Amino acid sequence: MSLNPKRTIEELKELRELTSDENGAQRVAWTATWRKAREWFDAKLAGLPVEHHHDAAGNSWTTLAGASEKVLLLGGHLDSVPNGGWLDGSLDVLAGFEVLRRFAEEFDGRPPVTIRLVDWADEEGARFGRSLLGSSAFAGTASIAVDRGRTDKDGVRLEDALRSNGVEIDDFDEAQRERKHAAAYLELHIEQGPVLERMGLPLATVLGTKGVERHAITFHGQEAHSGSTPMNARHDALAAAAKLALEIRAIARKHSDAVCTMGSVKTFPGIVTAVVGRCETTLDQRDLDAAVLAQMYREAQEASRRFAGEEQCSVEWSRIWNIEPVPFYPALLTLCDEAIRETAGQTHRMPSGPLHDAAEVARAGIPAVMLFVQSLRGISHNKIEDTKEEHIELAVRALDRLASKAAQWILEQA
Amino acid sequence: MSLNPKRTIEELKELRELTSDENGAQRVAWTATWRKAREWFDAKLAGLPVEHHHDAAGNSWTTLAGASEKVLLLGGHLDSVPNGGWLDGSLDVLAGFEVLRRFAEEFDGRPPVTIRLVDWADEEGARFGRSLLGSSAFAGTASIAVDRGRTDKDGVRLEDALRSNGVEIDDFDEAQRERKHAAAYLELHIEQGPVLERMGLPLATVLGTKGVERHAITFHGQEAHSGSTPMNARHDALAAAAKLALEIRAIARKHSDAVCTMGSVKTFPGIVTAVVGRCETTLDQRDLDAAVLAQMYREAQEASRRFAGEEQCSVEWSRIWNIEPVPFYPALLTLCDEAIRETAGQTHRMPSGPLHDAAEVARAGIPAVMLFVQSLRGISHNKIEDTKEEHIELAVRALDRLASKAAQWILEQA
Repeated sequence: MSLNPKRTIEELKELRELTSDENGAQRVAWTATWRKAREWFDAKLAGLPVEHHHDAAGNSWTTLAGASEKVLLLGGHLDSVPNGGWLDGSLDVLAGFEVLRRFAEEFDGRPPVTIRLVDWADEEGARFGRSLLGSSAFAGTASIAVDRGRTDKDGVRLEDALRSNGVEIDDFDEAQRERKHAAAYLELHIEQGPVLERMGLPLATVLGTKGVERHAITFHGQEAHSGSTPMNARHDALAAAAKLALEIRAIARKHSDAVCTMGSVKTFPGIVTAVVGRCETTLDQRDLDAAVLAQMYREAQEASRRFAGEEQCSVEWSRIWNIEPVPFYPALLTLCDEAIRETAGQTHRMPSGPLHDAAEVARAGIPAVMLFVQSLRGISHNKIEDTKEEHIELAVRALDRLASKAAQWILEQA
Repeated sequence: MSLNPKRTIEELKELRELTSDENGAQRVAWTATWRKAREWFDAKLAGLPVEHHHDAAGNSWTTLAGASEKVLLLGGHLDSVPNGGWLDGSLDVLAGFEVLRRFAEEFDGRPPVTIRLVDWADEEGARFGRSLLGSSAFAGTASIAVDRGRTDKDGVRLEDALRSNGVEIDDFDEAQRERKHAAAYLELHIEQGPVLERMGLPLATVLGTKGVERHAITFHGQEAHSGSTPMNARHDALAAAAKLALEIRAIARKHSDAVCTMGSVKTFPGIVTAVVGRCETTLDQRDLDAAVLAQMYREAQEASRRFAGEEQCSVEWSRIWNIEPVPFYPALLTLCDEAIRETAGQTHRMPSGPLHDAAEVARAGIPAVMLFVQSLRGISHNKIEDTKEEHIELAVRALDRLASKAAQWILEQA
């Protein structure tokens, strides 16, 4: 067997050299640097017994045909956020590529099942604010009508940016054809959080992606002069918001893996000499259990109304976005546990807070699972994003073991 | 006696007509609209037995010479904030003007003491962020070196704006000459708060202006992904700030007239998907008692450090500005109580949260006092700023009575 995890690390560094500047990775989807990354990848296919094409949504497919037409999918994304890291997305693609090459070599170009590696287009949504664009087209969950009119910070429309990359948003549905014969989907990703580092573990099985409730919450009080308005005559919108900022933590802590975050607070008029008349906040709530998520949402609403009342303010909620939890496939979770245990000795199961393309694949009804590899300091979307090289090697080995197990499992299905 | 409070209301309306637009008063100091207001006022002096000039800091002086060279000062300011109200400052000037005319008429142009009406330049500091500019030059507390370099939002330097109004900042000290023979200072102002309206009283004696401690407080935590960072792994700068936003209210409520306000909160990166890594806040604390103010400041600092520790954050304080409390002159407080009681039946004593030119006059060692007249809804610095016309009339009458009492008191002094 020819699996060479060190080659994955070398290729990640090559890609970083090619597509980063002093501020980090610049592989933003639909830009020249992203296309350069993809061209670099395509050149690596020379001499391999694979077919390669882009689908109608710009996803890049590399197919190693097998004895069975049933497909084992390996996925990731070469695109990055601006000033991003060297691992987010690229590790997934290049580890999958290493596994595909191992299958090609071991089975002399014809493995027992068909292996397809996909580089999803625009996972990050960094330019137009629409993440998972390519995988949602694949899954048939794309919101074309809404997304068409999105613009980047320079006013360029999403539709036009895609067209200049050879992608017609009206043809997105054709990307669903790529689902044909898909039997399982695997994705390796850096954790992007501090959990594994704190536990001292290199790898984890990902249970699924958490559902998200994301809302804008605005408290309305009464702007007033900070010097002339007695404390008991105030309708302080910030006070109500501050109570909620603290209460959401108690709401989250009732559940082991739940998180609630107030990420933005804006005060109006927002000057040192005025009681806050209006306070705009955001709330992001996540859990893998839909019932828990619904409960947390309800509790936050109730708390906000209670606090508004206490402060003689009013409150309004506006949903920014939400998505249901996407649990991964139980049989694949088991295989993933085994693969990690055989590679690293010990495994752990955890949900993913961040979304991933795997969630869209799972929503399309394709059995899916992900592996996490430890992140250093929990930092991602930043040039200091990092993972120990020994852990990257373990991760490639675990993905490879999981791929073999999943291929076997596919063949065992009716 | 010819006091005509209705004339004051008419003149206030004339001035409003002349210097407001659909958004409110636009008499911002050192602008054409402000000069128009002053020219309108100057034209009213025709035929009166007064001397008029502008001093070296742009303050406008109208002098009715009396039998004694001892001076009773009446003051206010015609300048407004942008989109301001019709009463803030202008009521003081025009009520004082009415009183001066009454003295002129009653004593046939030569009252027992000299009466001087001053329209202070740039009380609001709306354009350059430096309030009480003219009265601080008069008092000798002006910070010329610091203020010289101030710029407005268009980049115009304060020094240049003053020069184009005929005022040389280097000559500010000459304005101190206007203090000669000054024996008492009276100023009527709208309350700009809700206290008198809530008490159902038209008028109050102002005890002094509260001291102010004004600080920028920044909490430093760790920016982190809202989805991948467990609740117990966070260093949430907003949580520490929220605790302080609530605690300052308990700190203020230990003291009857004290106020503490967090007027601005800024979150960084300030996005829905990130735990707040840095939270910048402002704190404004006021009380008439210097010891209370110092205690509140110390308690807020201690609380901020405690909350930073609880949230695994750090905190830094930076003083924006401070001023000591300025109590008004006891004998004048008594006369003011009497004047109000004789005019409106009942009086009340209260400190002023907002600063006023009277504080600078008092800092110069001149006995001073202020009267407040009720504000509707406690709103000021806004076009809906208002006071019942019957209360304006009462206020002019009370100021007039107080002026007579103060003139008598001046003559009784050694």
